Amino acid sequence: MKKIGEQTFELEKDVCVVSRCSLVGSKEGDGPLKDYFDFIETDDKMGEKTFEKGERQMFLKTIKSAIEKSKIKKENIDLYVGGDLMNQLVSSNYVASELELCFLGLYNACATMTESLIVGSTFLDSGGATNVLCATGSHFSTAERQYRYPLEFGNQRQSYAQWTVTGVGATLLSNKISSKVKVKRFAIGKVTDFGVSDIANMGAAMAPAAMETICAFFKDTGTNQKDYDLIATGDLGKLGSDILKDLMLEKGYDIETNYIDCGHMIFNIDQDTLQGGSGAGCSASVLNSYILSKMETGELKRVLLISTGALMSTTTNQQGDSIPCIAHLVMFEGE
Amino acid sequence: MKKIGEQTFELEKDVCVVSRCSLVGSKEGDGPLKDYFDFIETDDKMGEKTFEKGERQMFLKTIKSAIEKSKIKKENIDLYVGGDLMNQLVSSNYVASELELCFLGLYNACATMTESLIVGSTFLDSGGATNVLCATGSHFSTAERQYRYPLEFGNQRQSYAQWTVTGVGATLLSNKISSKVKVKRFAIGKVTDFGVSDIANMGAAMAPAAMETICAFFKDTGTNQKDYDLIATGDLGKLGSDILKDLMLEKGYDIETNYIDCGHMIFNIDQDTLQGGSGAGCSASVLNSYILSKMETGELKRVLLISTGALMSTTTNQQGDSIPCIAHLVMFEGE
Repeated sequence: MKKIGEQTFELEKDVCVVSRCSLVGSKEGDGPLKDYFDFIETDDKMGEKTFEKGERQMFLKTIKSAIEKSKIKKENIDLYVGGDLMNQLVSSNYVASELELCFLGLYNACATMTESLIVGSTFLDSGGATNVLCATGSHFSTAERQYRYPLEFGNQRQSYAQWTVTGVGATLLSNKISSKVKVKRFAIGKVTDFGVSDIANMGAAMAPAAMETICAFFKDTGTNQKDYDLIATGDLGKLGSDILKDLMLEKGYDIETNYIDCGHMIFNIDQDTLQGGSGAGCSASVLNSYILSKMETGELKRVLLISTGALMSTTTNQQGDSIPCIAHLVMFEGE
Repeated sequence: MKKIGEQTFELEKDVCVVSRCSLVGSKEGDGPLKDYFDFIETDDKMGEKTFEKGERQMFLKTIKSAIEKSKIKKENIDLYVGGDLMNQLVSSNYVASELELCFLGLYNACATMTESLIVGSTFLDSGGATNVLCATGSHFSTAERQYRYPLEFGNQRQSYAQWTVTGVGATLLSNKISSKVKVKRFAIGKVTDFGVSDIANMGAAMAPAAMETICAFFKDTGTNQKDYDLIATGDLGKLGSDILKDLMLEKGYDIETNYIDCGHMIFNIDQDTLQGGSGAGCSASVLNSYILSKMETGELKRVLLISTGALMSTTTNQQGDSIPCIAHLVMFEGE
C-alpha cells in the first residue's frame, strides 16, 4: 500500500468485490431502490422475541447469503470486520460468535461500512489475508429506543430529522479471486466538530466532515468531481446533502450532476422519513445493492463512497457536548 | 504480512515500539506497579466537571506524552487507532477531534488494546503508514455508571467481581524508526460463548476465549509456553486467571511459571478490588508501563500479551443473553 498526500492510501494488490448482499426492512423495501435489494423483510423481529435479536438474524441472513454467492468456503474467510449502532456493537458480537470467524469490531457510527472496507482492504493488501468479510447494519427500532425514545412513546420528530435504516450490507473482498469491481484507494477521515449540538440535525453536523474528506482526497490524488461517475455520501439526508453541495461549491467543486446521498435516495418523499435515511445500514445496504450492481453492469466505472458518522452518545448530548463527526472515503473502480 | 495456520499473522516489516506512555488513577497508583506508570492522577475528573470529560483529558495527556517522547512530529503520524468502554466510543472520538489525526475507532471491550496494535501493525506492514498511534483506556467512574449502578447508590459487589481500571495506555508504532521492542506476530480472536450470563463474573466468561486464542497461536506457530519469557492476559482477574491456568493445563500447557494477568497484578490484595482490575485501560496501562519497560531493559525478550474482552451490553444482559467473549494476542520481541 502506498500513502498519497495526507489522508489517502492506494492499494498495490488487486482487492476485488467477490460478492455482496443487502437486506432491508419493509419500509426501505417500499422505497425507490426496492428492486436492487436481495432481501426485503416484512417482519422486523425476524421471528425473534426482540428487535435486538431480530437485528442479529438480519446480519446472519445477509452474511450467509454473501458467503454462499461468493462460493468461498467459510473456513477460507480469514477475517470478519464490521460493526453496528448498538452499544458495545452487540449485534456484530453475537453474529461473530455464530459465524466462528476471526473478528475485529469497528465503530465509527454510520461511517462503519467504509471503515470496514478500509481495514479489510489493508489486511488484503498486506498479503496476510486472502478473503475478508465486511458487514455493517442498523435497525430502526433498536436504534430508536437506544438513542431516542421508546417507540410506544410516539414522539414527534423534527422536520430536519432522519430515519434510521433497517438494513444490513455485506461485502466479501478477496485478493485472490478476480471480479469486475475493485477497491483502488481510500481516504481515512479526521474527526471534525463544527459545534452542532442538536442530535436531531445530524445531516448538518456530518456535512462538513464529508466535505473535508472529499476535498482531502481530491487534493491528495490531484483529481476532482469530474473524474468520477458517481460520488455517493452515506447518510446526510436531503438537508445534509444540500449543505454538502454548497460547501463543495465554496471549495470550487460543483458536484450537482454526479452526486447522490444514500440516505436521501433510499426513501420516497411520501414515506414520512423527513430528511431521509441514516444508520450504519444505510450506506451499507445501498452500496451492496444499487451502487455495486450499477458497477457490475458497467454503467458506473469510477465511484466514490463517503460514509459519514455522527460520533455522539446520549451521555455526551446530555452533558451539552457538540457532535464530533467523521467521514471515510472508498474509491471503487469497475471494468 | 504472512498468515500462519488459522488465526496467526506474521509481520514482514519491522514494526517497532517507538514510544509509550501510561496514566492511571490514584487507586492504581497505590498498587504494586506504581513505580512503572508515567502519570498517577489524584483527581479522577482531571479538573473537569464530569468523569466523562475527565477521561478524555486522561487520554489526551497520555497520548501527547507518548508523541513527545517519540520525537515524531504529530503531522507525521498517519493514523490513530483505538477505543474505550464508553457507548459509541465517545472518549476516543472527542480525543481524535482534538488531535486532528486520521482516526479508526475500534471496539472489542477490554481486548481493544491488542486489537489496536493488530490494526496498527497491519497498516505499518502494508507500507501505507509509517507511524501509527494506538491508544485505549477506561475509567472506573464512567464505566460503573454506564454498565452497573450510579456510584452514589453504593451497591455491594460480588466476591468474584472485578474493578474497572482508571487508566490509559498509548503505544506509538513505526516501521521507519528503530527501537528495541518489535511486534512480530499476532493472532486474531474468534468470539466464543461458553454460556456464562453473570455479568459480575467476567473472568470466568473470558478465560475460555483467552485459552482458545493462546492454543490457536501455539498450534499455528508450533511453539509452546516455554518459548516465551512472559505470557500476560489482559484482565481475567485472580479467579479468571486461575481458570485459564486449569484450562491450559487440560490442553497440555503448564503456564504456571511464566504467566501473569494484568488485572490481577495491578492492585494489591488489600485494596478491596476483589478479583482485580478490568477494562480497556487495564492491559493498555500495564503493557505501556511494566511489560514494555522490562522488555526495554532486556529482562524480558519474548512476550505474549492476550487482552480479553467481554462483549455484552446492559441490553443483552437484560434480555437474558449469555456473554460472548474475545481475546486477541500480540507477540512482542526484544533485543
